[in-house]
Amino acid sequence: MKTLTDLNKKLQVEFGIGFDDLSLLETAFTHTSYANEHRLLKISHNERLEFLGDAVLQLIISQYLYQKYPDKPEGDMSKLRSTFVREESLAGFSRACGFAPYLKLGKGEEKSGGRDRDTILGDAFEAFLGALLLDKGIESVEAFLYKVMIPHLEQGTFAKVEDYKTKLQEILQVNGEIDIDYVVVDETGPAHDKVFQVEVRVNGRVVGHGQGRSKKIAEQQAAQHAVEQGN
Amino acid sequence: MKTLTDLNKKLQVEFGIGFDDLSLLETAFTHTSYANEHRLLKISHNERLEFLGDAVLQLIISQYLYQKYPDKPEGDMSKLRSTFVREESLAGFSRACGFAPYLKLGKGEEKSGGRDRDTILGDAFEAFLGALLLDKGIESVEAFLYKVMIPHLEQGTFAKVEDYKTKLQEILQVNGEIDIDYVVVDETGPAHDKVFQVEVRVNGRVVGHGQGRSKKIAEQQAAQHAVEQGN
Repeated sequence: MKTLTDLNKKLQVEFGIGFDDLSLLETAFTHTSYANEHRLLKISHNERLEFLGDAVLQLIISQYLYQKYPDKPEGDMSKLRSTFVREESLAGFSRACGFAPYLKLGKGEEKSGGRDRDTILGDAFEAFLGALLLDKGIESVEAFLYKVMIPHLEQGTFAKVEDYKTKLQEILQVNGEIDIDYVVVDETGPAHDKVFQVEVRVNGRVVGHGQGRSKKIAEQQAAQHAVEQGN
Repeated sequence: MKTLTDLNKKLQVEFGIGFDDLSLLETAFTHTSYANEHRLLKISHNERLEFLGDAVLQLIISQYLYQKYPDKPEGDMSKLRSTFVREESLAGFSRACGFAPYLKLGKGEEKSGGRDRDTILGDAFEAFLGALLLDKGIESVEAFLYKVMIPHLEQGTFAKVEDYKTKLQEILQVNGEIDIDYVVVDETGPAHDKVFQVEVRVNGRVVGHGQGRSKKIAEQQAAQHAVEQGN
């Protein structure tokens, strides 16, 4: 686990953000499981900041959608917004920002792979936004999201990532019952910085390869590979 | 129906808000029913602004709760927030701001009492916040809500208003089956500025009086009167 000072340096270098109140930053990366393990120290965990971060994220995405799609009715904007801010999407941005190594987790959570769990990573992303809102104001949250998140929404990157497993299944099922298996064939790097290699097998035959910082991403890559190869 | 210029004057005098883009203000007060009746004119209605206003309202209330209740867990703040921003509450603030006369409604909606309907008034309140956000920025929305809405949340006014009908029922039901009726005994003023007089009767006997700009408010006042009198 890297330190708070490392994190603040990283934020400064990569995003031009220097927190004045480091305790906010610490709270944002503290999972309930860690706070529970250190009850006597009365450590704050990130759920309250997540509440705030969720609200500021919703607003900024709403404003973005309102301006980008002047003709979309409210219902369509609402659907798009919920796609953008769903757990897996936020977890992806948390990974892309390299937040995982800075999470403070309880021992049980760490053992069971919490550091790469979408709920934990997504919540931490929101909590970080909440901390940033309190420390630097909404303009900073906006600038951060327009740097880190919104360009990828534009490219539809995350929407695509989610589609390949379903797409592969749809293509293959035309020929009747089939078995599609995703198998992790290699796992390298330290706990907080793993890379997974995944094969997708159709009725036992390897039809695609993928890799990524989570099994989910590696599986999607493998499915994409299979779809694009026409296997 | 009063004009847009009247509305802008009123906002200036009562809240110190002068819109630069009056078309935003117009859209905020235009119900879908009005836009549908004038399809050929391609008039914008307020649903997209409501989408934006809802998001900015959620954020400002979240920040308020975060700061006011440093020890409340996320779940409690979430419950409080949804109480504060529920339809009847927002409709109440819309009435308190005197927004009803400025609504643009379709003829059918007008005839069926849409000008005093909670959904329409609540949505217009949110749409107004959306328009204010676009025209003047989030600080203005915050200032407006801290003037118009938040002091009443503090006093629990709106929470209380909702409780008296239930409270009266609970008190009276201890003595077995009873009939509680709320009867409108008088209705004064023009369509957009009505005052309702309501009596609450228990097994036919009048036990409380109330008045208000909507039947709901008048009923709650009557129930409160009955509870406080110990009738």
